[in-house]
Amino acid sequence: MNKQRAVGLLSGGPDSAATLAIALREGYDVHALSFDYGQRHRIELNRAAQIARLLGVASHKVIVFDLRAIGGSALTSDIAVPKADPAAPVGVGIPVTYVPARNTIFLSLALAYAETLGAAHIFIGVNALDYSGYPDCRPEYIAAYERMANLAIKEAVEGRLAIRIHTPLIGMTKKEIIQSGARLGVDFSMTLSCYDPAPNGAPCGQCDSCRLRARGFEEAGLNDPASQGGSR
Amino acid sequence: MNKQRAVGLLSGGPDSAATLAIALREGYDVHALSFDYGQRHRIELNRAAQIARLLGVASHKVIVFDLRAIGGSALTSDIAVPKADPAAPVGVGIPVTYVPARNTIFLSLALAYAETLGAAHIFIGVNALDYSGYPDCRPEYIAAYERMANLAIKEAVEGRLAIRIHTPLIGMTKKEIIQSGARLGVDFSMTLSCYDPAPNGAPCGQCDSCRLRARGFEEAGLNDPASQGGSR
Repeated sequence: MNKQRAVGLLSGGPDSAATLAIALREGYDVHALSFDYGQRHRIELNRAAQIARLLGVASHKVIVFDLRAIGGSALTSDIAVPKADPAAPVGVGIPVTYVPARNTIFLSLALAYAETLGAAHIFIGVNALDYSGYPDCRPEYIAAYERMANLAIKEAVEGRLAIRIHTPLIGMTKKEIIQSGARLGVDFSMTLSCYDPAPNGAPCGQCDSCRLRARGFEEAGLNDPASQGGSR
Repeated sequence: MNKQRAVGLLSGGPDSAATLAIALREGYDVHALSFDYGQRHRIELNRAAQIARLLGVASHKVIVFDLRAIGGSALTSDIAVPKADPAAPVGVGIPVTYVPARNTIFLSLALAYAETLGAAHIFIGVNALDYSGYPDCRPEYIAAYERMANLAIKEAVEGRLAIRIHTPLIGMTKKEIIQSGARLGVDFSMTLSCYDPAPNGAPCGQCDSCRLRARGFEEAGLNDPASQGGSR
């Protein structure tokens, strides 16, 4: 094949949409992968499917598993998502929206899929700057994951694939992510950032993720197409 | 608490049963974890539940996810499990029963569960000697996984847990695993090794796993209680 295959993790949020747009622009044959893991905001998966279609990826697959069996996070269990005044500073430290080992689980399923596809490249939209302090978004974590991955799978151990985890957003601010996605034609009206959206997908405007997004659009000097018409 | 908590991966096979027996003997408060991942031989899960009860673990949880969406293995898709004369040597190289990134996925879910439980210890029954050459059963893989895990999760990064992956069988022969399990009272009649059992759980006697098991019992000088009454 001419194009190099890649697996791109797609959550339905703006970061993963921008990441896949970057992978496509870099010429990869991108196979999008989403997860139905019992997240509260299932509308994410509909958005992910729309984004995949708009971006023109080679394929889009959803893997079902149930992280609610494990618990321990506001995103999958009954812990309340914290809300704050939208103008208040975003909190420091790791918040209750942290999902135990989430990126490790996601990357592991992506690794299995990559091996099956013969794809050496995995794209994930982690960001170490403007994110909420999650440990599995840091460069040292990604480097350790990549090293482990190349010892884990048959195709790597036998020398046919050298797995590389691409994190094009890792050093960007939210402003730069929004600007980069906008330049590459990402339709941000389809993307969902909110940790606790209404059933119709309207963002709460008060969780950490909504506030980071609002700040990113503001600093980028762009209007957020998903917030037109005001909050719910 | 007095006892240290551990997560123990339990497949329903003799190796994971022996591993959990070792963890219990070492004094850990063992929380067993099994996976319903679309494996062909679902009877494994019934056996895992029986083994967990007989061993007296603190709890037993099953996480559901669907690896069939990924494919690429004789254990989860339509690829035929290879059969050979039981007396023939076990093949070299990585066989089609390899499941892409299986232990990486299993350990990642175990890591999430461990963080939720506040358990620093994860027990997995991998074996680098008499196994079928799977890359994710080797010590260098386990060491890389452990290193990654300690960068991945909040409880480790914030210094409250130092994750340790225990692999008590990694340097044992199948003979030694059987002997060790027998000494610790593992009821091997409940354990299932076969990659392609009959619906009632009767082993085929011809797959790599059946042949390794038979050789292990023979070399240990023990009768296999699961093979009494002959093959199906």
